[in-house]
Amino acid sequence: WGKSSTGTIHSCQPFMDSANQCHGSFGAAMASCTSHTDRIEMRSLHKTVLLVLVASVVLVLAVLHSWPTRAYSTVDVRQRPGTGVERLLAERLPEPDPSAGTIPYRVRESVAGLLAHNGCVCEGERAGVNLPFAQLLFPRVSAHPLHTAFQPSQLDEMKRRRAKEYQGFQMRSQTPADLLIVTEANSPLQYPTQGVEVRPLKTILIPGLALKDLPRDIYTLNFSASLGTFNMAAEVEGVKVRGDGEMHMTLSSCVLPNLNRQLQFITYTNTLFHPSTADTVQLETEGHQALFTIKIRHGVTPRLYNTGGDADKEYNISTLVTIATKTFLRYNKLQDLIDSIRRYYPTVTIVIADDSENPKMVSGPYIEHYVMPFGKGWFAGRNLAVSQVTTKYVLWVDDDFIFTANTKLEKLVEVLEKTTLDLVGGAVREATGYTATYRQTISIEAGEEEGDCLHMRRGFHHAIDGFPNCVVTDGVINFFLARTDKVQQVGFDPRLARVAHMGNENPVDWLTQDDEVFKEQYLPLLGWVQDSSFLLSECEGVLLQKFALSCQLPLRTHCTVGTPINSYLIHQQVFLQASIQ
Amino acid sequence: WGKSSTGTIHSCQPFMDSANQCHGSFGAAMASCTSHTDRIEMRSLHKTVLLVLVASVVLVLAVLHSWPTRAYSTVDVRQRPGTGVERLLAERLPEPDPSAGTIPYRVRESVAGLLAHNGCVCEGERAGVNLPFAQLLFPRVSAHPLHTAFQPSQLDEMKRRRAKEYQGFQMRSQTPADLLIVTEANSPLQYPTQGVEVRPLKTILIPGLALKDLPRDIYTLNFSASLGTFNMAAEVEGVKVRGDGEMHMTLSSCVLPNLNRQLQFITYTNTLFHPSTADTVQLETEGHQALFTIKIRHGVTPRLYNTGGDADKEYNISTLVTIATKTFLRYNKLQDLIDSIRRYYPTVTIVIADDSENPKMVSGPYIEHYVMPFGKGWFAGRNLAVSQVTTKYVLWVDDDFIFTANTKLEKLVEVLEKTTLDLVGGAVREATGYTATYRQTISIEAGEEEGDCLHMRRGFHHAIDGFPNCVVTDGVINFFLARTDKVQQVGFDPRLARVAHMGNENPVDWLTQDDEVFKEQYLPLLGWVQDSSFLLSECEGVLLQKFALSCQLPLRTHCTVGTPINSYLIHQQVFLQASIQ
Repeated sequence: WGKSSTGTIHSCQPFMDSANQCHGSFGAAMASCTSHTDRIEMRSLHKTVLLVLVASVVLVLAVLHSWPTRAYSTVDVRQRPGTGVERLLAERLPEPDPSAGTIPYRVRESVAGLLAHNGCVCEGERAGVNLPFAQLLFPRVSAHPLHTAFQPSQLDEMKRRRAKEYQGFQMRSQTPADLLIVTEANSPLQYPTQGVEVRPLKTILIPGLALKDLPRDIYTLNFSASLGTFNMAAEVEGVKVRGDGEMHMTLSSCVLPNLNRQLQFITYTNTLFHPSTADTVQLETEGHQALFTIKIRHGVTPRLYNTGGDADKEYNISTLVTIATKTFLRYNKLQDLIDSIRRYYPTVTIVIADDSENPKMVSGPYIEHYVMPFGKGWFAGRNLAVSQVTTKYVLWVDDDFIFTANTKLEKLVEVLEKTTLDLVGGAVREATGYTATYRQTISIEAGEEEGDCLHMRRGFHHAIDGFPNCVVTDGVINFFLARTDKVQQVGFDPRLARVAHMGNENPVDWLTQDDEVFKEQYLPLLGWVQDSSFLLSECEGVLLQKFALSCQLPLRTHCTVGTPINSYLIHQQVFLQASIQ
Repeated sequence: WGKSSTGTIHSCQPFMDSANQCHGSFGAAMASCTSHTDRIEMRSLHKTVLLVLVASVVLVLAVLHSWPTRAYSTVDVRQRPGTGVERLLAERLPEPDPSAGTIPYRVRESVAGLLAHNGCVCEGERAGVNLPFAQLLFPRVSAHPLHTAFQPSQLDEMKRRRAKEYQGFQMRSQTPADLLIVTEANSPLQYPTQGVEVRPLKTILIPGLALKDLPRDIYTLNFSASLGTFNMAAEVEGVKVRGDGEMHMTLSSCVLPNLNRQLQFITYTNTLFHPSTADTVQLETEGHQALFTIKIRHGVTPRLYNTGGDADKEYNISTLVTIATKTFLRYNKLQDLIDSIRRYYPTVTIVIADDSENPKMVSGPYIEHYVMPFGKGWFAGRNLAVSQVTTKYVLWVDDDFIFTANTKLEKLVEVLEKTTLDLVGGAVREATGYTATYRQTISIEAGEEEGDCLHMRRGFHHAIDGFPNCVVTDGVINFFLARTDKVQQVGFDPRLARVAHMGNENPVDWLTQDDEVFKEQYLPLLGWVQDSSFLLSECEGVLLQKFALSCQLPLRTHCTVGTPINSYLIHQQVFLQASIQ
């Protein structure tokens, strides 16, 4: 009899041949839908007796109800740094071969230079001669030192607070499913390294488990978890189990095929509730260990929208699209916009967020007018408008746009219906006749704890199969169609306020004013705020200093439909004014 | 000289002893911040000559700009079912040992019954005698057949549309990072099975790679990916490389320590842009294969809020909390609420969403009043209100609540400051003196393609360490404090409308009316809508039919602070009226 790795001696019983047939089927059992409280069946009784009985029963039940029907376990959800799992995994990373450390190597700079070095520096270039078209001809790299938003005396306090908030965020968002696990070579253990998932408090079969060991007297397998328990959906002869229904379970057998058969029926049950986490399972057999992760999370329930109409016919724009806009102090332009929309789309819903000083009434069929406190700003307005959209897609327009016969929303809808993109930008033609699209690529370079560097450049990532004139990029012009659920999920941060147009439509004047305007009005934020609207052409083509503005870029990026004319940052309708509240 | 697995013959050169020292450091290189366009440095010139030059330069640059500066690759983002990766993984799942299939087993019903069987059935119980306190004493299981929202003639069309939308959703949301991978036992390959991540279009070192093979004449390792390329950050003598910089790379060497040393410098560069996906890397050596995943995604940028005040002193409620509410046709109650808040929190911001028919002005310091189109509903109103919050936490109240000296927001803030929970519900005391909290557990049972079953029961999951009277649950009463970023991320679906209070405050009458009211006013939805407000005590304690309402439960759940009196569904202020748009 062999000694197992747990230190006890398992006697090895001969395999019992029996006529054990598999009975029942796994799918037959139905989950019980009864509630925990016992039910009492009523029979007919005399009324007064009934009332007396009812009164006493109420009393009794009241007492019973206050007693817990089962023992509840306690969880510790306090914010605490570090857990046993990270330590465990760190200990288990394989040591590099000590002899290998002496073997010399020659650095390949072209590749090594691409690796993140966590020390980005963003510096702009000095301004050259201030000529007309200067920015056009000689695009300079500008950088914005965001820490200058704070008085030097405040700076340390702000950094301290930010570090504390960031730490809390990390504790809430870290999951064992992201930790590094390296598999052991030449291990007899076969197990799933990815793809095992269980709904909170539910049970699953663990797939892919097997032991492919050399011949031994006895085979032992230990299971260990911390957020759930192990068990067996079926029992196999010749396999001894200890700890079934617990967080630590041991299987042992003398007959390897039987142990492997048993391994096909191992279950995991999540017992500590959490809507989105992972349990790290430790497997152990003689001389070998393995770790793998079981994800514990709710299923994703999709937001599905009724698209109306027949799939084979043309798109039903009124059912599919809501037009959203924000207006401020220019009702005449807004009315022009509405009139132009109605010429082509008489029944499409238009949602208007209005933060004007003395709001006028804006009404009409399929018009929804929302009045905000005065001057709340563009970001708050956009967040409000999209929060009210009930169609599959939302089309963003500015209140000074005009629809023309060329404004074919069906084309934009087709892109999103036929691809996996979340958002598609259009093209905006100025009164001058100049038509602009707008493509920005955004990349984030890791910095140290002061923050990261955000790089924005004109350009795009890829062209798109099947859609000529359409490219994948990160930033588009503020005329776009997007999936409503995605935009609502990312949103626009109402903490950011926007400085209105300068009122000067001359592109040349805009260009020369550009740098001055930025320095005056761009009050940087020390990492407090992310501009999730970044994606949607808020940010200018500048390099931002390490201190702060990183952007949330969760949307599958978008393409611009229309003539791919490069935009020269002429349409700077947005100056970012960020402020600390 | 050995023949490698690729079929070619690699000559085996003797290891060249050299004094190759490691030079340079990986961290030294700094990312270039220059833009793609060449810059021309201006020197002083005569003005007219300058203008002529400028004109010609403009012309030349215009021509140059229209030539792409680099070749762009094309991506296929069209919705297409199935990819090569799934097929690859399916083929690679290990075959169960054929002999094992003959070994009999005995089903353990208690465990097998817990496994999902994808065939849930939700049926209610017949109503008993309709007595006072009937629901109190004898809680029945109710079920709601949601498909009855549609005329039978419409039903098939609705199901077809829903299936199409769901399919699109699946295509957009599936990722290779969720597919099942089972590691091969007794493989000489050592590799990372979890935790390898790269930012889009960036480069990383792949950790944990090694080959622990038996002695051979020649060792070969093949790398294969589909969304990026492999390379080496450093070169080691005695290792031959083919395909560096490409999606398929081969390393070979006669000296195993040198190959393993080289494996410490293997890099992966993502070349096909996608903001959130994964690449499945295939590793291959003589007779063995392995698969692992590299996640490709943007880093998560946290939304951090300025908490104001000193960490050691008391919480600064005005900086931390915004009170949000929705009002409809009862300005007197709203004013009572505001007055009561001001007695204890004179400077906390109050956000009011108002969809009354003839809106009155509501004003005052720190009051933000938003006017909506008449009757948009509670969900739209709540989504609007939270979309405007700029503080770390948002406190939801109903417009007929009153603050008292016992309404200590600091207690609620403390729970969220000290734990990883996202939301904490309070207790609401009725005019009768009855104080209710509200705890609902929600569990989803997988159904077939018709939909899942949603089970709601009174109760909770766990008690909480350090917070007596506080439990972890899924649904709370509609008086709660929550993290603003989380609530904004989940939101409230404006497609759901709410029927107002019956106006009858007598608990007994509510109870007897309950079932009737539900049947009349609960118009189910065929899977079009998810009630993300579920979490926030919208849904009643009912069992819902398979067809439809599944809930989004992404928030880390919450605890109720206050006296743990079980609520008997008396506070049914919400009747869910769902309608198809």
